[in-house]
Amino acid sequence: MRYIKVLLLLFLTMVLSSCSILSPKATPVNNEGSLWQVYDQYFKTAKYVDLSHVISPEIPVWEGFGPPVFGPAMNAQTGNPYSYKENGFESTRYMLSSDQLGTHIDAPAHWAPEYPATDEIPVTYAIRQLVVISIADKVHRNPNYHLRVEDILEWEKLNGVIPAGSVVFIRSDWSKSWPSPALARQTLLPGVRLEALKFLHLERKILMHGHEPMDTDSTLSLEGESWLMHNGYAQAEALANLDQVPEKGALVIIGFPKFQGGTGAYARFIAICPSDWKHGASINQLNESPLPKMDKILIWDFQKGMRIRK
Amino acid sequence: MRYIKVLLLLFLTMVLSSCSILSPKATPVNNEGSLWQVYDQYFKTAKYVDLSHVISPEIPVWEGFGPPVFGPAMNAQTGNPYSYKENGFESTRYMLSSDQLGTHIDAPAHWAPEYPATDEIPVTYAIRQLVVISIADKVHRNPNYHLRVEDILEWEKLNGVIPAGSVVFIRSDWSKSWPSPALARQTLLPGVRLEALKFLHLERKILMHGHEPMDTDSTLSLEGESWLMHNGYAQAEALANLDQVPEKGALVIIGFPKFQGGTGAYARFIAICPSDWKHGASINQLNESPLPKMDKILIWDFQKGMRIRK
Repeated sequence: MRYIKVLLLLFLTMVLSSCSILSPKATPVNNEGSLWQVYDQYFKTAKYVDLSHVISPEIPVWEGFGPPVFGPAMNAQTGNPYSYKENGFESTRYMLSSDQLGTHIDAPAHWAPEYPATDEIPVTYAIRQLVVISIADKVHRNPNYHLRVEDILEWEKLNGVIPAGSVVFIRSDWSKSWPSPALARQTLLPGVRLEALKFLHLERKILMHGHEPMDTDSTLSLEGESWLMHNGYAQAEALANLDQVPEKGALVIIGFPKFQGGTGAYARFIAICPSDWKHGASINQLNESPLPKMDKILIWDFQKGMRIRK
Repeated sequence: MRYIKVLLLLFLTMVLSSCSILSPKATPVNNEGSLWQVYDQYFKTAKYVDLSHVISPEIPVWEGFGPPVFGPAMNAQTGNPYSYKENGFESTRYMLSSDQLGTHIDAPAHWAPEYPATDEIPVTYAIRQLVVISIADKVHRNPNYHLRVEDILEWEKLNGVIPAGSVVFIRSDWSKSWPSPALARQTLLPGVRLEALKFLHLERKILMHGHEPMDTDSTLSLEGESWLMHNGYAQAEALANLDQVPEKGALVIIGFPKFQGGTGAYARFIAICPSDWKHGASINQLNESPLPKMDKILIWDFQKGMRIRK
């Protein structure tokens, strides 16, 4: 009987410890503190990788638009530029030839005015599961290689089915030559086949795809982008650092200012990778607040047409 | 004996089901799939609230800068605007008088060239715990009310100590009059006292604070902004919808494109609120992909100087 009593006690302990009241890990999702707990547990130690390029007058831009021009912000009354010396502050004035410069998101209104502009994209384009499919090896052998459905199925054989609602970025390592001006004049580039875009959207129901070059494919009619825009799909272009994020398991933050009626939006994409990932920076690892004093000061460089450190 | 066997079997089942191999809920934090699990469990059902205004030629802007001007993007060779009809696509050209328009983040280089510009802010400014302190009631009685240390301590009495590294946004409901042009000419506005900024940064070690107006305070020297910028602290300005997020328990996503040497950056702030929160939209609740066809098409309005739906 003592044997039975011990067993009963053990049994009772197991039942109680697996019950949600006693186990903090099983705290219900909906309590008010839970997102703060998630932050403490996962996001403080996660590794952050920037997937956006810096925008400057020197980046490659399609010659049909021409480059952006920066200038010091000017006193609207006098026309004189504000300066640290005279006014205690400076600011920047931008003449941006297109809303499609640098790393950006295309809204379908870029080609199809009956579909949403960038400011009409829902707020739920904010944080998503990130899938990275690499065609870098194939592009190394053929600079005009385009992602095929077989490449997607190959990824799924290793990693499981692509989650619905996820963001799928295609790694080609094209961005490693950024910001070479020659990139804007390329006719051969790593692309995504129309059949692959259709598979990702119609079969896998992803939120959107993205790629490193400034175009979706190298066809004369830009058939991939045309299909996306005329069917209500957004896309991300000119992505960076896809070689520094895992093929699965990361999240991506999507952030772009909302210019009214915009057809594209200058965008920030940041990957949140697991804390044991080899690339990226963790919170508190850098001087975040206060930000550190730099060795050199920012000065307006008239030749470069922007502020640089000297 | 049959009783003992049944008990033993039950016991074995409990032990096995609580072991990490069989229970997906007990998967260790650091396994590759864990951020995806966090997404499935918390972020799919969370409520997303947009804290950024739309930027247009009609928003209030400090008269020292003057308003932004939008135009259709033009063929750099011919000078003709691209049109859906002629070219199959459109794009937008921006003449932006300042990098401080609409909802934005100030880098300390705005006032202090020895500190980081917007493109030098670390990538870990990405997702944070969000604290919202409301002075809306006091501002209702006194439009020039400025947040005091007592207001912060009052918040902490109810909600606990403000977490280090968090983002603290001050709700005043000032933004409810946005985009009235009169907002740019106000001399009385809800602000943040210098002592409160010092308390938040030096005592509570927050990442940054943000507010609804376009200035931190209504002093002639802008003493609050001056202290922040000359001590390496960023800030968020012209925030929206702070009345639609909880005082604690939400996260905030921070996204801004990186213009080189920028003193401010057009920014997107999105609050992620608990799934039982009364405001905001959840993933899959809206038509996200494909985006829905709109009732009216986007047309360039020459009088308004932007694309609108007609």
